Amino acid sequence: VTKYYTPHTHTFMNFFVVSPQGCRYVSKAAAKTQVEFDYDGPSMTTTVPGPRSQELMKQLGQIQNTGAINFFCNYEESKGNYLVDVDGNRMLDIYTQISSIPIGYNHPALLKVMTNPNNLSTFVNRPALGILPPENFPDKITESLLSVAPSGMTRVQTMSCGACSNENAYKAIFIWYRNKERGPNTPTNEELNTSMINQAPGCPELSILSFMGGFHGRTLGCLATTHSKAIHKLDIPSFDWPVAPFPRLQYPLDEFTRDNAEEEARCLEEVEDLIVKWRQKGKPVAGIVIEPIQAEGGDNHASPDFFRRLRNIARKHGCAFHVDEVQTGGGGTGKFWAHEHWGMDDPADVVSFSKKLLSGGYYHKDELQADKCWCITGVPAHVLFLCFPQPYRIFNTWMGDPSKNLFLSEVLNVIRRENLLEQVTRSGKALLNGLYELQAQYPSILSRARGQGTFCAIDACDDATRDRIMLKARDKGVLLGGCGDRTIRFRPALVFKEYHVNLFLNIFNDVLAQHK
Amino acid sequence: VTKYYTPHTHTFMNFFVVSPQGCRYVSKAAAKTQVEFDYDGPSMTTTVPGPRSQELMKQLGQIQNTGAINFFCNYEESKGNYLVDVDGNRMLDIYTQISSIPIGYNHPALLKVMTNPNNLSTFVNRPALGILPPENFPDKITESLLSVAPSGMTRVQTMSCGACSNENAYKAIFIWYRNKERGPNTPTNEELNTSMINQAPGCPELSILSFMGGFHGRTLGCLATTHSKAIHKLDIPSFDWPVAPFPRLQYPLDEFTRDNAEEEARCLEEVEDLIVKWRQKGKPVAGIVIEPIQAEGGDNHASPDFFRRLRNIARKHGCAFHVDEVQTGGGGTGKFWAHEHWGMDDPADVVSFSKKLLSGGYYHKDELQADKCWCITGVPAHVLFLCFPQPYRIFNTWMGDPSKNLFLSEVLNVIRRENLLEQVTRSGKALLNGLYELQAQYPSILSRARGQGTFCAIDACDDATRDRIMLKARDKGVLLGGCGDRTIRFRPALVFKEYHVNLFLNIFNDVLAQHK
Repeated sequence: VTKYYTPHTHTFMNFFVVSPQGCRYVSKAAAKTQVEFDYDGPSMTTTVPGPRSQELMKQLGQIQNTGAINFFCNYEESKGNYLVDVDGNRMLDIYTQISSIPIGYNHPALLKVMTNPNNLSTFVNRPALGILPPENFPDKITESLLSVAPSGMTRVQTMSCGACSNENAYKAIFIWYRNKERGPNTPTNEELNTSMINQAPGCPELSILSFMGGFHGRTLGCLATTHSKAIHKLDIPSFDWPVAPFPRLQYPLDEFTRDNAEEEARCLEEVEDLIVKWRQKGKPVAGIVIEPIQAEGGDNHASPDFFRRLRNIARKHGCAFHVDEVQTGGGGTGKFWAHEHWGMDDPADVVSFSKKLLSGGYYHKDELQADKCWCITGVPAHVLFLCFPQPYRIFNTWMGDPSKNLFLSEVLNVIRRENLLEQVTRSGKALLNGLYELQAQYPSILSRARGQGTFCAIDACDDATRDRIMLKARDKGVLLGGCGDRTIRFRPALVFKEYHVNLFLNIFNDVLAQHK
Repeated sequence: VTKYYTPHTHTFMNFFVVSPQGCRYVSKAAAKTQVEFDYDGPSMTTTVPGPRSQELMKQLGQIQNTGAINFFCNYEESKGNYLVDVDGNRMLDIYTQISSIPIGYNHPALLKVMTNPNNLSTFVNRPALGILPPENFPDKITESLLSVAPSGMTRVQTMSCGACSNENAYKAIFIWYRNKERGPNTPTNEELNTSMINQAPGCPELSILSFMGGFHGRTLGCLATTHSKAIHKLDIPSFDWPVAPFPRLQYPLDEFTRDNAEEEARCLEEVEDLIVKWRQKGKPVAGIVIEPIQAEGGDNHASPDFFRRLRNIARKHGCAFHVDEVQTGGGGTGKFWAHEHWGMDDPADVVSFSKKLLSGGYYHKDELQADKCWCITGVPAHVLFLCFPQPYRIFNTWMGDPSKNLFLSEVLNVIRRENLLEQVTRSGKALLNGLYELQAQYPSILSRARGQGTFCAIDACDDATRDRIMLKARDKGVLLGGCGDRTIRFRPALVFKEYHVNLFLNIFNDVLAQHK
């Protein structure tokens, strides 16, 4: 059944006129020509989770907690923007494995990586990258990660996941901060000895300033900077680190510039107060960590001006400025890094990534590399590892995974070849315009539509409504994600086109109409 | 040049008589028949690192800290027990990527995984396992991880690396501990609210007791339980958690049973004292974490009796007992888990793993699953995530990597088919006997030979000698690893045979003879 989105207002007409080809693709033939690896639309055979998913849920329930599982997937049959489940349901995926699938399912360019015999041994022999990297490692990270390095950064440290990326970035920040304080001096015996038993001065009381609503991972260091939901933090010991308010803005941003500027000024003032207060407490702020758009915390935006001022505050107080692009990085905002929207030459000291980049890591400035070499005499060898004093400070067994870099190189090729960032910008405009229309049409249900590129969000009136709407949309073949307490977030792959936007808006409109 | 190990003593003769076939393999024909995917010996063309490695080191030095890099590798040409470098040197690898290559390089069974078209999509589409697992996930972890589950454990949580495994295991322990204290009660509003700003009671002052010399990873939670080298911990904020002494035993263990038992009793007494002291401090010990053999800290052993008593102390004081098998797990000790040597039905509450298991995770008892469901009224939705309160407490985007499980299934098949654990036990005996001989022959250089299976170690007289010996051995085609301050550790793959032991002993003997 082919359906078209019915415009209700003038603006909506414009939206249609701007993208007339949007509906043309809703025929099998056209779709196959234009997007050869995509399906032509959702196709539902059961409610979700269907019987087969429920059966597997029981099986897995014997082994693991299955409370978070949506359904089980048939990844072989999934293609492009469509995720197929084990009951044969085919859903338009606007959540993409928590924003971690960059160019859709089973992209031909990625399948080709697998059939290249030269790549075999990279998959089969996972190296300890920090000590025994493969011959092509410098070339591979040059053509992959370095080719998209943020402004001012030529160095990158690979890691295996987002949490490890942030944990190690924090460590690099602490080491950098103490090296600054230490100057030309080497660590004292007291520092070395106390560090072994977790005590100051060896393990100093330094802090990372983070923001209420922020999310930076769930390991103990990261979790001390995560403040999105209590259930993530309850019962886990933490650090006494400062938490600043993140601006709570009104949307659309350009209609509330004055109020929003005031709110941002209030938050920035609080940041400076906290830095001073924690320094007085003897727990100086070594770094500030922030997402360009708070994602898990409810898709909260701030203006480029806010980030520019915050970056200056960090500089003024000698704190490293760490931009966490784990969820925003990789193109979803229409630029490869969300911080590019700030228009700064020197946006950050550290930028961490994972998800769409397929493995983790962080870029950093030269000065944040922990490889200063000391010559220390009089320190017993069991206290200081003399042979390689500094390289092992940021280290673990795998330090990433070269097989993921093979895929990333291809992902970047596809992004460039198919101008996917421009595609994202176009689709994002269509999506946000559609959301504006829908919230105008259903003001009792929806509000606060916002976004950059396809990295969009809209709020429901309450969490129960949000959850009901999302489940109904899923049963009609659209997979969405939630965040914050009542927000629906949109995290499509970069191959999400205006055609898919229209498909989604059609279905979402039906869901909302039935909800009333 | 074929060389044979020259026995110098009677015992050595015995060693030779017991394994006469050891030398037979040192001909190309025999090697190819017996170990079809292995080379027949080391082959060196340059000193290491050679010119090509040095060139690549410079290139990578522009991008990363290269201080820890040994050399660059040609993983395509590496086979079985032999690692080939980019200068064409072929080394007998007794370190295996920090103990993480289970069945050698480019094992045919693993290459076959890559050529099976059914496996393609598992590599290309990495799922968010916690919400959208693939159809075969329950079967795959049943046939891989669950088929080797430690005694008393039927549940396993997958993770991506060793540090994340321990971080999440600690979280599960803290949640379990607080749930016990809380009983039938739900968390209070005060707990939920304070947790958002890192404060007690929401983020309670609980602790994990660990051991001096232990290593459990380098992320901030793990690092608070790691005490192997100061340089790993210096400048990183930590938790005030108790650190107990690990027994410092004399080797061979069976010659010093009484002294060793006294030393172990001393350490156990200290453990109980610390548990009491930290409870009085208001930072109760929720869990005890320990390695069956302290690896990074210098290959320190303790007796089965020590671990049985420690396990009882944990039980008595209501602390979870967490056995970290990240380095010891996977067969290197001659049993799949090192803790099997303790001969206990209920060895642990949590067992974490990574490395040879190819991705990370932890097994745990039912009661450590964080899925107790609360019904809470009167708590604002933004504080508590009402829809799925508990499943997201142990969670991240990827939660492991199913493509690594494909390999692990094959690894386990090979271990069973080829009886590799028996092989390890045989090779381990030959290796340890050889080390006993060498330390008898070179008492001014070597001492404290020790080991279980091929998980062996020997101490040099000092760190400089240790490092010199290791570099010389490398130039002669044997790759070894260091640990502690003066220890050489042996971490061969499970396909390391008596033939390889003899090859190694030949070369090592030459190195030591020249060193004198």
